[in-house]
Formats: sequence, structure tokens, C-alpha cells
Amino acid sequence: MQQCSGGIIRRQQHLIRCLAVNETLISVNKITRMQSVMSGASPNLEVDALSILRSISPTLDPNKHKGQAGKIAVVGGCREYTGAPYFSAISALKIGADLSHVICTKDAAPVIKSYSPELIVHPLLEESYNVREEDRKSISTRVLAEVDKWLERFDCLVIGPGLGRDPFLLDCVSDIMKHARQSNVPMVIDGDGLFLVTNRLDLVSGYPLAVLTPNVNEYKRLVQTVLNCEVNDQDGPQQLLSLASSIGGVTILRKGQSDYFSDGKEVKSVSIFGSPRRCGGQGDILSGSVAVFLSWARQVAAKEGTHTNPAMLGCIAGSALMRKAASLAFEDKKRSTLTSDIIECLGRSLEDICPVR
Amino acid sequence: MQQCSGGIIRRQQHLIRCLAVNETLISVNKITRMQSVMSGASPNLEVDALSILRSISPTLDPNKHKGQAGKIAVVGGCREYTGAPYFSAISALKIGADLSHVICTKDAAPVIKSYSPELIVHPLLEESYNVREEDRKSISTRVLAEVDKWLERFDCLVIGPGLGRDPFLLDCVSDIMKHARQSNVPMVIDGDGLFLVTNRLDLVSGYPLAVLTPNVNEYKRLVQTVLNCEVNDQDGPQQLLSLASSIGGVTILRKGQSDYFSDGKEVKSVSIFGSPRRCGGQGDILSGSVAVFLSWARQVAAKEGTHTNPAMLGCIAGSALMRKAASLAFEDKKRSTLTSDIIECLGRSLEDICPVR
Repeated sequence: MQQCSGGIIRRQQHLIRCLAVNETLISVNKITRMQSVMSGASPNLEVDALSILRSISPTLDPNKHKGQAGKIAVVGGCREYTGAPYFSAISALKIGADLSHVICTKDAAPVIKSYSPELIVHPLLEESYNVREEDRKSISTRVLAEVDKWLERFDCLVIGPGLGRDPFLLDCVSDIMKHARQSNVPMVIDGDGLFLVTNRLDLVSGYPLAVLTPNVNEYKRLVQTVLNCEVNDQDGPQQLLSLASSIGGVTILRKGQSDYFSDGKEVKSVSIFGSPRRCGGQGDILSGSVAVFLSWARQVAAKEGTHTNPAMLGCIAGSALMRKAASLAFEDKKRSTLTSDIIECLGRSLEDICPVR
Repeated sequence: MQQCSGGIIRRQQHLIRCLAVNETLISVNKITRMQSVMSGASPNLEVDALSILRSISPTLDPNKHKGQAGKIAVVGGCREYTGAPYFSAISALKIGADLSHVICTKDAAPVIKSYSPELIVHPLLEESYNVREEDRKSISTRVLAEVDKWLERFDCLVIGPGLGRDPFLLDCVSDIMKHARQSNVPMVIDGDGLFLVTNRLDLVSGYPLAVLTPNVNEYKRLVQTVLNCEVNDQDGPQQLLSLASSIGGVTILRKGQSDYFSDGKEVKSVSIFGSPRRCGGQGDILSGSVAVFLSWARQVAAKEGTHTNPAMLGCIAGSALMRKAASLAFEDKKRSTLTSDIIECLGRSLEDICPVR
């Protein structure tokens, strides 16, 4: 027990060190640092993301049973979009989650199912075109009741990949988010989920288990809506801190040449690896990855009583893995790199960073 | 003829030896044994699973025609689940069955068909949402008549992968099981099939060609329902024996860090190989594998008059192959291993264990 507590303390100290400025890493990654400096990134915010990833990744233990390494659900996929929820959900599995679900519209389900037999796809949501005015109430009640049966089994939700912007659908998803929050289920919010949240800040405001992962345009809309000003890249980290703080301490992962993270208390960045290819779908890999790492970070926190925000750790680890996989895929496929190629590199990237013992 | 009988007797003696304690194997697999001891497995129950697998696998003979190496049907696949029946049915083919069918709902069929052109997928079943109250009787009669046309052609059924829990569907499947039993068709029951059977023990009770393959939670429910007590891991093998005996001598494959098998007369275990990855779908590979090996073991029994329970032999061989394939896939893919990766390793595993002469 003595030994065990010692181990926990060492791990906590290690996590604290990882979150502190990592001069060694930065001096090793000279090129990366130069890029960061050139792009206005602040090297002194850079964390040792690889050590954080290692700290929160669970050991693979033959005593464990199905589900203990994570059960993720992606809420997204409509008549128009089917690729995004697939990318997010399959990435969660490839990183090591045991079960990955997709909750989507009835039209989207057969297509998403056909991409992979590994996913559990629930054809539950409806879009306005398919719902008569007088049936709206009863259908949204039924959708919510169906989702509720599953909700507490999920370790994390990803809200938004390929969700679309149908008003009836977004109303249903708002209800799902309220229930998830009541049940203390973490949520990673991306894509059309960010469109929803930017108009309905109350859905996430003050919820520490909410993570927003905006790209350039989504970030711009958030800043305009919440801070009532334009994006200020001269003082980017401070503005990100204010934004996260203004939404009551949610965690924001601002995607870019360097990724920045804030929960309203601190700001960190990850600049290692990465790829210059900007094919659509990479944000979906990231949302699925953050969902898994956030779940693992919560497991570590629950077991070892660490006080580091698991949402921040999940974002940092997800960002580092995504950037590593993108760089490996780009090495191989160059201009031709697609999101599927990056997904195929998730396993090798994870093994390079955090080899299975 | 003299020579032939001698061969049969030698094979019988060999099978008896394989089912006995195998000290050589255990001393070779020191690490496995240590793991077994640590996890409470009993090394003296360990069988020489690889020799059993070799004993029941048919030689590949150019004189044989399509169907003689096995015709399997998976009853499962509904609006919600399509991956599980695919995994089970494709595994049966990859192990060496000649034909693999899936009997599923009309919604699930196009998706399962899209996973692979190798499978024969019958869109026969219906779920409640699609059936009017007054049509129930006629529809279930029609479903049963359709299935009956095929039933006697199948060497084994797998009941349950991705079946779901719709009451009308489960009633139809209960009728299918009754007919299969009347026709002496073996049944491997997993997933939602176990949910059905736990509530309807009469469907399998006293049927020696029924195999149940519960995981941790399914086993717990079976023990609670049948033995009216909790799972007792201190005396696991004895409790498994009692459970199989109480259900009238069905064979139970209890999945875990070590797999245990009992038909109510004896208990055996397999601990070789395996993987610490617990992604969903592995149980489906196992159910498809057991179905094939059970069919082959019955062929051997019919030809050579062996008295060893073919259900036990099928379980042992299926378990060993699954564990070997999982270990090969894990060696390659580590944390990123998915069920499809394990299926891709079935062929190599089989060839490693039992090379084609």
C-alpha cells in the first residue's frame, strides 16, 4: 500500500511536470519550435504531450473485460453527411476503445453501418422533412427515451460530426445533451455541434466535462458570440483563456498550425508533428481521439485522485496522437493523403509513443 | 479394413489422451500457466487443445464436393445490429466451412450483404415495429415455413449475434430453435440468444447439441437464474459443472482470461495464447468458429464412432483457434487491434496449428 501510494504520488508529480514548460522537448524539436515561433505560437506554453499521453493510457490487462477500455458514442450522421461520424467512431476504436456507437438519422444508418461492421449504429434521429408538425413532440420524446436507455453506458459522447443543421434534429440533440449533462457524461463537441452550442451556450456553460474543438471559422464565431469581439492573434492564448473562462470553464481545443488548449484556468499548446495536408475529416479523427483519452484520463483521476483536469489531458493527448498519425500518413502519401490514411496510422503512432508492455 | 479399424482406434485413443491432463503442454507454456494460476485457473483442467483441433479438422480431399466441409447459418442481425452476425458468419467461412448463411431482419439484410459477397443473407425475420398486431400469427408462420425449407441443410446454427431483444423477433427465433432441435441440428447460442435462453431454459434444457458461450455478464445471469446464487470464482469449475448439469447436459463455454468448458460431466480449460484487447465482436468470431468445429467433430464421431462429446471438442478447438488468432493480430496491431484484424488471422492460425497436408 505504501508502495502503491508512492506510485500514485510519483505519477501525479510526473503529470504536473508534463504540464509544465518542457524545455527539453522544445530544444529537441528545433524545427517545430521555429515553426511555432514563426506562426506566433508561444513555446513556453508547450507541454510534453507524449508523456501526458503515456500517463493516461491504460495498461492492457488480461483480467479486464469488454467495455473497461472505453465505450464511446458519436451523435451525428444525417441524410447529407455520413463520413464524419464514421471517422470519429472508428478512430475511437483504433485508439483502443472497446465499443464505439453512432447515433444518427434513419437515412444515414445503413450507409454508416456499411463502412464498417465494427461500429454499433443506432438509427434513432429524425430530420424535419420526415416529421409532420403534429408528430414532433411524440417523436422527440421517443428519440430521447431510446437514447436514455444507452446514455449511462457511455464513457464519453462526441456531439456533432456530420450532424447537419436541421432545426428539429438540433432540438433533439439539445435534449440529449441536457440528459448527458445530468448524467455527468463528458461531451466532445465539434462541427455542427459547435454551430448548435454557439447559439445555445447554456447547453455547455459551466459544465467542466464539455470540450469544444473549434477550427478557424468555428473559433471565430465563438469569439464573436461570447466575447463580442474579433479574434486577436497577437494575444491568442489570453483570448482563448478568456473564452473558456467566459463559458464557465469548459475546455477549448483551438485547432491550428499549433493546437492550443484552455479550461479557463491555464493555456497550453502542442506543436509537435503535424502535416500540411488539410483534407476534410481530420477534425473527426481528433474528436474521436479526445473522447477516448478524456475517458482514460478520468479513469486515472478516479483511481489515483489526481487533480489535473482530465479534459485538458484528453485534448493534449488527442492532439499529439492526431498530429503524429497525420505526419506518418503524409510521409507515405504526400499530397494524396486522405483521412482514411491517417486513421490507418493511428495504431502505429500510438505504439511508437506508448508501446504496449 | 483391419488397417482402417486400427487407425480409428488409434485416433480414439489419441482424442482420449488429448482430453486428459496435458502436463507437457503446461510445462512448455510456463507463462500461460503462471497467468492461469494467478487468475484462479486450474492447470490440471487444461487440455491439449491444439491436438484436439488437429484431430477434428477434416483433410482437404479433392474428391469432396461443396457443402461437405460444413454449412453454417447465423440467426441474427436486426435494425440495430449488423456487424455481429457478419463477424460470426465470415469467421465460419474463413475457418473452412463451405457455405455460410445469415438469417436476419429485412432491414439488416442489405447492410450485411454489403459487408461481403461471400455470405448468403436471408431477409426473413421481422421486428415488432414493422408488424401489425393482427398480422403477427401469419407472419411468424410464414417466417418459420421459410426457415424450415433450409433448416435440415445446415450442419449447425449460431443463434444470437446481433439478434436484438424485440419480443416478436425472439418469439420467432424460439420457434426456429424448437424446429432445429426436432431436426437434431446443433445450436451455438451467444449474445441476445443467451438473453432469450436464460428466460426460456426449456428451449435448450436436455439438448446435448446446444452450446452456450456466455461472457462475464451473461454467465452471471445464467448462474443467478439457474442455480439461484451468485458466481463463485473460488470454486468456478465445480459451479460451471453444476450449471451445465442443471440445464440437462448442454455444453457451456465460459469465456474469460482462461476459457472453461463443461457438459455437466466434466470440466476442461484452455489458457494458451489470447490477447489483452477486449474490442467488441470477438465473441462473434468464437461462436462462428465453435459452430464449424462442432460440425467437424460430429462428422468424426459419426465416421469413427468416438464417444467424446463433439460439443466439448468443438468448443475447445474454437477457443484455441480464436485465442491464437487474437494473439497474432495483437502482435501486429497492438492497442489498435479490431475484430476484423483477428478474422484476418484465422487462416494463418489454422495453418500454423494444423497445416494442410
